[in-house]
Amino acid sequence: MTAEPASIIGASVERLEDRPLVTGRGRFAGDVSFVHQLHMRIVRSAYAHARLKAVATEAARALPGVVAVWTADDIADLSPIDFREGPNEKLAPFRQPVLAREYVRYAGEPVAAVFATDPYIAEDAADLVTIEADELDAVIDASIPASEFTAGLTTEPTVCRQGYGDVAAAFREAANVIDMDLSVGRHSGVPLETRGAIGHYDAARDVLELHGAAKVPHKNREAMARMFGRSTAGVHLYEGHVGGGFGVRGEIYPEDILVLVAAMRLGRPVKWLEDRREHMIAANHSRQQRHRIRAAVDAQGRLIGIDDAFFHDQGAYIRTHGTRVADTACGILPGPYRLPHYRVDAHFRLTNKTPAATYRSPGRYETNFVRERLMDAIALKLGLSRIEVRRRNLVSPEEMPYERPLVALGDEVVLDSGDYEGLLNKALERCEWDRLEREAAERRKAGEYVGLGLAMYVEKSGLGPIDGARVNVHTNGDVEVITGGASVGQGFETVIAQVCAETLGTDYRRIRVVHGRTDRIEYGIGAHATRATVMTANATAVAAGKVRAKALDMAAQLLQTEPSKLTIRDGRVVNSDGSDSAGMPLGDLAHHLRPLSSTRGEREPGLAAEGWFTTSHMTYPYGVQVALVKIDPGTGGVHIEKMLIAFDIGRAINPMLVRGQLVGGFAQGLGGALFEEFQYDERGQPLSVTFADYLMPTAHEVPEVDVLIAEDAASTTNPLGIKGAGEGGIAAVGAVIASAVDDALGGKGLITQIPITPQALKAIIDGQKS
Amino acid sequence: MTAEPASIIGASVERLEDRPLVTGRGRFAGDVSFVHQLHMRIVRSAYAHARLKAVATEAARALPGVVAVWTADDIADLSPIDFREGPNEKLAPFRQPVLAREYVRYAGEPVAAVFATDPYIAEDAADLVTIEADELDAVIDASIPASEFTAGLTTEPTVCRQGYGDVAAAFREAANVIDMDLSVGRHSGVPLETRGAIGHYDAARDVLELHGAAKVPHKNREAMARMFGRSTAGVHLYEGHVGGGFGVRGEIYPEDILVLVAAMRLGRPVKWLEDRREHMIAANHSRQQRHRIRAAVDAQGRLIGIDDAFFHDQGAYIRTHGTRVADTACGILPGPYRLPHYRVDAHFRLTNKTPAATYRSPGRYETNFVRERLMDAIALKLGLSRIEVRRRNLVSPEEMPYERPLVALGDEVVLDSGDYEGLLNKALERCEWDRLEREAAERRKAGEYVGLGLAMYVEKSGLGPIDGARVNVHTNGDVEVITGGASVGQGFETVIAQVCAETLGTDYRRIRVVHGRTDRIEYGIGAHATRATVMTANATAVAAGKVRAKALDMAAQLLQTEPSKLTIRDGRVVNSDGSDSAGMPLGDLAHHLRPLSSTRGEREPGLAAEGWFTTSHMTYPYGVQVALVKIDPGTGGVHIEKMLIAFDIGRAINPMLVRGQLVGGFAQGLGGALFEEFQYDERGQPLSVTFADYLMPTAHEVPEVDVLIAEDAASTTNPLGIKGAGEGGIAAVGAVIASAVDDALGGKGLITQIPITPQALKAIIDGQKS
Repeated sequence: MTAEPASIIGASVERLEDRPLVTGRGRFAGDVSFVHQLHMRIVRSAYAHARLKAVATEAARALPGVVAVWTADDIADLSPIDFREGPNEKLAPFRQPVLAREYVRYAGEPVAAVFATDPYIAEDAADLVTIEADELDAVIDASIPASEFTAGLTTEPTVCRQGYGDVAAAFREAANVIDMDLSVGRHSGVPLETRGAIGHYDAARDVLELHGAAKVPHKNREAMARMFGRSTAGVHLYEGHVGGGFGVRGEIYPEDILVLVAAMRLGRPVKWLEDRREHMIAANHSRQQRHRIRAAVDAQGRLIGIDDAFFHDQGAYIRTHGTRVADTACGILPGPYRLPHYRVDAHFRLTNKTPAATYRSPGRYETNFVRERLMDAIALKLGLSRIEVRRRNLVSPEEMPYERPLVALGDEVVLDSGDYEGLLNKALERCEWDRLEREAAERRKAGEYVGLGLAMYVEKSGLGPIDGARVNVHTNGDVEVITGGASVGQGFETVIAQVCAETLGTDYRRIRVVHGRTDRIEYGIGAHATRATVMTANATAVAAGKVRAKALDMAAQLLQTEPSKLTIRDGRVVNSDGSDSAGMPLGDLAHHLRPLSSTRGEREPGLAAEGWFTTSHMTYPYGVQVALVKIDPGTGGVHIEKMLIAFDIGRAINPMLVRGQLVGGFAQGLGGALFEEFQYDERGQPLSVTFADYLMPTAHEVPEVDVLIAEDAASTTNPLGIKGAGEGGIAAVGAVIASAVDDALGGKGLITQIPITPQALKAIIDGQKS
Repeated sequence: MTAEPASIIGASVERLEDRPLVTGRGRFAGDVSFVHQLHMRIVRSAYAHARLKAVATEAARALPGVVAVWTADDIADLSPIDFREGPNEKLAPFRQPVLAREYVRYAGEPVAAVFATDPYIAEDAADLVTIEADELDAVIDASIPASEFTAGLTTEPTVCRQGYGDVAAAFREAANVIDMDLSVGRHSGVPLETRGAIGHYDAARDVLELHGAAKVPHKNREAMARMFGRSTAGVHLYEGHVGGGFGVRGEIYPEDILVLVAAMRLGRPVKWLEDRREHMIAANHSRQQRHRIRAAVDAQGRLIGIDDAFFHDQGAYIRTHGTRVADTACGILPGPYRLPHYRVDAHFRLTNKTPAATYRSPGRYETNFVRERLMDAIALKLGLSRIEVRRRNLVSPEEMPYERPLVALGDEVVLDSGDYEGLLNKALERCEWDRLEREAAERRKAGEYVGLGLAMYVEKSGLGPIDGARVNVHTNGDVEVITGGASVGQGFETVIAQVCAETLGTDYRRIRVVHGRTDRIEYGIGAHATRATVMTANATAVAAGKVRAKALDMAAQLLQTEPSKLTIRDGRVVNSDGSDSAGMPLGDLAHHLRPLSSTRGEREPGLAAEGWFTTSHMTYPYGVQVALVKIDPGTGGVHIEKMLIAFDIGRAINPMLVRGQLVGGFAQGLGGALFEEFQYDERGQPLSVTFADYLMPTAHEVPEVDVLIAEDAASTTNPLGIKGAGEGGIAAVGAVIASAVDDALGGKGLITQIPITPQALKAIIDGQKS
């Protein structure tokens, strides 16, 4: 009797995707070139808000090597860029035109596009394009009264409202009311690789191709096909390697549309690569919200109600996500706590800044900061410990699944499983919270600015409702899994291969995972909202299960036995009792199932199957973050002495990759907590356009992170029991750092906004001293 | 009540594939380029047979711009090029190595490959490679006794034998025995576009790509994957436009392997374009056979038996087809006639010439010539008219399906349907045979060399056993049909779209037909053996039928009716009684069937389906060709005064395209009948390497062709009732022209070989005069 091999789900195996990357054979947007390609350069508005009078392109056109210079008039037939989820009449007026028409609404807005035979010529020519315009006042603060907004599109397009219960009553009954004004700064994903797009029109096949696609190729294909009046069969997107996605890469931007239209109309491939300054002003910003939040709390510190009105600074246009970030913020704000009454008004406001959209953990990074600041404030007000106030409010395992009459990403919020207090206990024990708290207090007494912070949060993942995959075993025994997923560096290929390998009983290294190519599979969800692993892996498991059954059935016929007496080990169908060591290789069975095979019988050709996985709701991993920080009172700099992320992911397919996601996410979150901010002057001029102005955390700032991966609460929404880990590292970093810094300052609730810049911190400390 | 729209099957609609071609946006191999590509040039043997002593590459390597020069030693790990149908132990020793090793066996054999940054440098460098070798005797006649063959591989590898009955008894009983020695010259497909191949290795995805593929991309992928030890998922072939296929393009040649291996090993794309001289000595030759055939005939002119021994001149190596051409010749030789006893020995012999394989109508062009010469000889011997002797021998409609214990292309020969005499009558009537015959006789009497010829033949098509297709309706109502077919110019896209349109009730111009891309569908039969229309169209009809049923089912739910009460017209589901004029567009139904749709219910996502079509046997169209020719006795030139092709195709999907196939095929067949021949001197040096030596028919030589498309005998092997037309035009041209020329010479059976060159003809005429 042969022992069953250990499960490969849960094994920290090496990544399949690394070979080309570590051997320098990656294929990023910059690596993609076509012969005879043109290079595009965008002429951007220097005004934050102005009425366009004239765009002079003659000088640019006259430069040798320039093939075309386009303004809005040249693409008058193109609609503004539509929303990913389809047309939305209410939001339609606020969409961004591909090139500015009549008005410019943010500094950096594309006004003209230059196409030349050489990127340097294109850049020189772009400098020759002159914009004549009448400057208008710029709105840069989303939280001013609506009446003060200037005319035109720069106004409040919508209020997103959610809630339940009787909030007014809650506040009437409350023993304590806590009132806060909390702000999250404008920052975003700033990946190592800037954006890039290469448009290629294959006239021979009438297929329009976008290379350098990312994130959601299938969804973008659908939107682009609609925009160009083509069928999806005539538009294909091809993902390359990605030097960081983080939500900002892979959305449909004006530049993507321009390279495609130019490829068709100019009859040559068109390449565009963003430079760093452009990325700072052209790629989606994110995060900026100001919350005026009030909590109604009973005498024991239990939440009765929350009333929040927040101002979401959308920037100049509503891009592909519509109001999703604000919506998600509304739905996710309550986090892991019981909340009987709730009301939230999201004032979704347009300003004269770069348009905003999603950045890793959108709507949660912000609201985790807001809610956890509130919990700390309740503890302070009631004289409870920060741990105790949370314990009193956490949803218990017995209450699962816990339904909230809220919606996030269009999905009703149902917390599927979780032992929040259990994870809290594990985290406190792991970091020796009591000792840390004691030592911090002692060091503060000794004059050090040392503080301990805590944040608890619920992440969301596995947005449905459906995904599919196709598994195909080749006659040599290799397996191909064709997915509509995307890889933004997260280890997608490895994880999908592991799940397939588990079901098929084959070496995961013999499994090739296809993603990010719309011509390989008709439908795909890409990689966003931490859904790829949950949705695509489960679809893969379904498909692989069908393939397994077919292999066993075919083998049973050939071996004259019953499928139930067979299993698959090491890529071979063997007797499940271990009595047959040789077995029948999967490749041989694929051979027997070839279309041409006579042994195939009535079976459909191919050792292959398509699998679909459907889920009714998202699944909710959760976490606890603990940070110990020390402030340098002389500079206001924050040093992180200790950092713990405890995260329950239900079931980890590859713990090494989960750890990577959590640590990487933390490093990114630190930027928004302490450093990164897109600042504007009062005329709407961007002040953070280089890495000298926009500060990213480096290896120097990022501490060693202790990671505790828990698997105590398997997801109940999918058979694999998995939850996503992609955003769990970043989600509460603003919250936990704020809590720790506040603690270092004496725990008085002085930290009400992030990033907590050295300047701000030094000002607080200096203020305390005086 | 709305009238049912006219069937689009049978309509001569315009070709879908022509737009890029007529607007100059085709994508032939020469149009495919990758950045940083290298250019390959092959160093070919000047010897027909020699033992290699040394290949000096130093000088070539030293030329600036040369990146590598390979000889056999550089690719010692590569096996010779294998057979399309898989390994064959008996034939394996005769396979062609990718680069010559130890021996060279034909003039033009690849000995070395030069890779350079520029095609001109590659060509210059190739001239610097010197080959030192000991020349050996060359064998150039395949019909000499086996004992006279020289040593080494240049010997008879195999005898293919088929037959049935008692041939010896047939000859004992025969009233008459006719004995002939008939030869068909060496010629082949010489397309306007020479071959080309571009190898590209995508290291980022570990995918090896061959661009410029044709004919059988899926089969070649499988063979290449085997050769390179890769899974088929790691090898993809991409078809371009094709400036003529004709059987010679799209096989695996040494050059295809070299560009792929070089792309992998040199890390840069590699492009190769053949020049005309190379095509003449490197692409597959075909046709050359010498038949020593005897017929046993009864007193009434009825065939009792045929005994044939023929010598198939294969050239130096056995290429991808193995012995298929000789096998097919054996199986097809009896044609439309009853033949009680039959024996054929095909001496499949290697000579020191360019290897041979298939050229449009392989095995039939040759044997139609042989058999029809025989029938004319029987008529002459028995004093019967050429019509009468055929009438007495034709298989009758009542005998269908007519099984012959023979095999062609691995398939048992079962003539599925046909009214051969009926078509003969139609043809005779159409061309006014009796009048033509009378007038020709009168003109001969008056001293003109005028003759009337006739040939009857059975073509084969629709080789099974299986093909599949996928039909997908997009949400905008456009349809994509994904096939594993290939387009060699025959109108594949149009025909498949017509069949799909018929089933789906949609405009064929809204249907996009994908072919020749191995990454779009896992299996495919390509385009060869006149099978694409029969097999792929029927698979398409199956898939479209499933899509239709799904559309009606979905619509019935939405309209709250029964599917049986609905039909599809103009791309809309409407009440079949015509009571609803608006209907529901297919695109809307596709929208309802999207993965995300809630109205979809339990239906599989997508208004899409895969369909498979399986057939047990080929289907056999048939034809009658009549030619009236006049010889110029001064030059020996043949002028064709009248030409008729009558062809029964079962059911024509697009008569215009059928006509095009028949006329084009005729023009090609004329080359082999009168002009084209690859000649060699006694040392095996090719003498026909330019268009000055190898004469192609031009517009001047090709007459107006009268085409009679009959649809009297629908195929019984497939639901559409269709048969293939791709080779029906060429198949009997050698036969009919020989018959007519012979008649012009007095009908004495003087024409025993083709091509009937002016020189040969003038010699005969001059001989007659003296």
